[in-house]
Amino acid sequence: MKQLKECQVTIVGLGLMGGSLAGGLRQRCRSVVGVARRQASVETALHRELVDRGTTDLEEGLAGADVVVLATPVRVILRQLQEIGPLLPADSLLLDLGSTKADIVAAMEGLPPRVQPLGGHPMCGKESSGIEAADPTIYHGATFILTPLERTSEQALGLGRDLAQALGSQPLVLSAARQDFLVGTLSHLPYLMACAMVATADQRTSPDPAAWKIVAGGYRDTTRVAGSDVTMMMDILLTNREPVLGAIETFQERISHLRRLIEGSDEAALRSVLQAIRDERLRMYP
Amino acid sequence: MKQLKECQVTIVGLGLMGGSLAGGLRQRCRSVVGVARRQASVETALHRELVDRGTTDLEEGLAGADVVVLATPVRVILRQLQEIGPLLPADSLLLDLGSTKADIVAAMEGLPPRVQPLGGHPMCGKESSGIEAADPTIYHGATFILTPLERTSEQALGLGRDLAQALGSQPLVLSAARQDFLVGTLSHLPYLMACAMVATADQRTSPDPAAWKIVAGGYRDTTRVAGSDVTMMMDILLTNREPVLGAIETFQERISHLRRLIEGSDEAALRSVLQAIRDERLRMYP
Repeated sequence: MKQLKECQVTIVGLGLMGGSLAGGLRQRCRSVVGVARRQASVETALHRELVDRGTTDLEEGLAGADVVVLATPVRVILRQLQEIGPLLPADSLLLDLGSTKADIVAAMEGLPPRVQPLGGHPMCGKESSGIEAADPTIYHGATFILTPLERTSEQALGLGRDLAQALGSQPLVLSAARQDFLVGTLSHLPYLMACAMVATADQRTSPDPAAWKIVAGGYRDTTRVAGSDVTMMMDILLTNREPVLGAIETFQERISHLRRLIEGSDEAALRSVLQAIRDERLRMYP
Repeated sequence: MKQLKECQVTIVGLGLMGGSLAGGLRQRCRSVVGVARRQASVETALHRELVDRGTTDLEEGLAGADVVVLATPVRVILRQLQEIGPLLPADSLLLDLGSTKADIVAAMEGLPPRVQPLGGHPMCGKESSGIEAADPTIYHGATFILTPLERTSEQALGLGRDLAQALGSQPLVLSAARQDFLVGTLSHLPYLMACAMVATADQRTSPDPAAWKIVAGGYRDTTRVAGSDVTMMMDILLTNREPVLGAIETFQERISHLRRLIEGSDEAALRSVLQAIRDERLRMYP
């Protein structure tokens, strides 16, 4: 398997994540080829100098690739994994950027033996989507989760690590199940909470024009991720149902507990719970 | 009633909000006097040049005041309103910075007729607390809610507006009930949500050391306000119980609804709900 700097990296999907990855790798590998469904995305990627070459033809884009990165929504990745096998060059590394990994890693088992599959999930992003929002710096300092299969070679995993580091990210190897459980609580639940918060405000306070004037930093920050791309989030939620539903259940218990403490005006217990939570938050972000 | 620039403003409570307000007003009024319980806070306020004079003696601090600002936690304000009446100079404006207003405005009715009471709630802050964290710029661009009583004169309300504007804030006059209802949903609920989120992560994922490496921007932002000062938040929650409990109830309905849509894999309905929420979020923060 080649060194990253000798590789042609073909990125399938030129949205926020794929476009940003393209720009971040361009000076770190032999060439970056972008494949998008829409010609306009290819042109934007070329114009912004995020890729060396671009095409809307998957087969053309994959020709000569040493590394292929699927940067599409999770369920598009699952469909692509059914079809892409015959088009992948021998000894190529196939990496994806999907936020849930169990289904993807299972689908990767079906790839031909001459391909090295590796699950990937960079823990970064922003609410704006599309190639216009691409920004290679989103990868800086982010954890880049890698979920190798049993069949994934050490060399392939090493190339995946090098790619993450070339982007300024820290690679972290986890099993697919462990990553899905963790992000179900730490990433997918915050999205649903933010959505429920926006829906609550919409129902209770939006009819009052003063509401728009008093929303402060607390509301803005807690609801930021509710602006995430819906297709991306739908795929995430529906391919990570059990961990997400488990996280919701625990969250509902916690909010019910806080509610009972306020209803009962149980000051000592409420203070003790809120103080422990504050301490925990400060431990995570000193 | 004097113009702000001719006023002595006495600020009772030199924490984050009071200290920041002191610093923001110093060049905009005749003098700023700070009153704190601890001598160390007075010294820090003097050292940081946030006040012209400082004292731990309430009576000394109130002498000669044209404007008095109570910048303590809500239930401390309620206690102070019971005792402060005889110490307030004639024709002085008494303003507070408490986050809930119904109880405070009710307690202000008991002040002597020679005093002009006015409820206030600046929609700003940050998680760090205390005079060390004081920063006059937190008021810049914030909405500063004012809740006048029936007895509050036009002149007193006008001075309150001038004070808010001198800090760089936008004054917004609301009834106490309306403000409490709005902030119950838009400020106090986000705090409780953030707390429940931290408690959920603590219960589900904290045992896994990888959790600390993968917490990304979504979790960080949705939980930021869980680091708020506990005494301040306790007072807020317990003096705004009905609006807060109502907001929690609506929130629980919304999260349950999302849960059912995911459980049932009802794609069309889930997509439609998430899209409407995203559109609403983008309307608020384009």
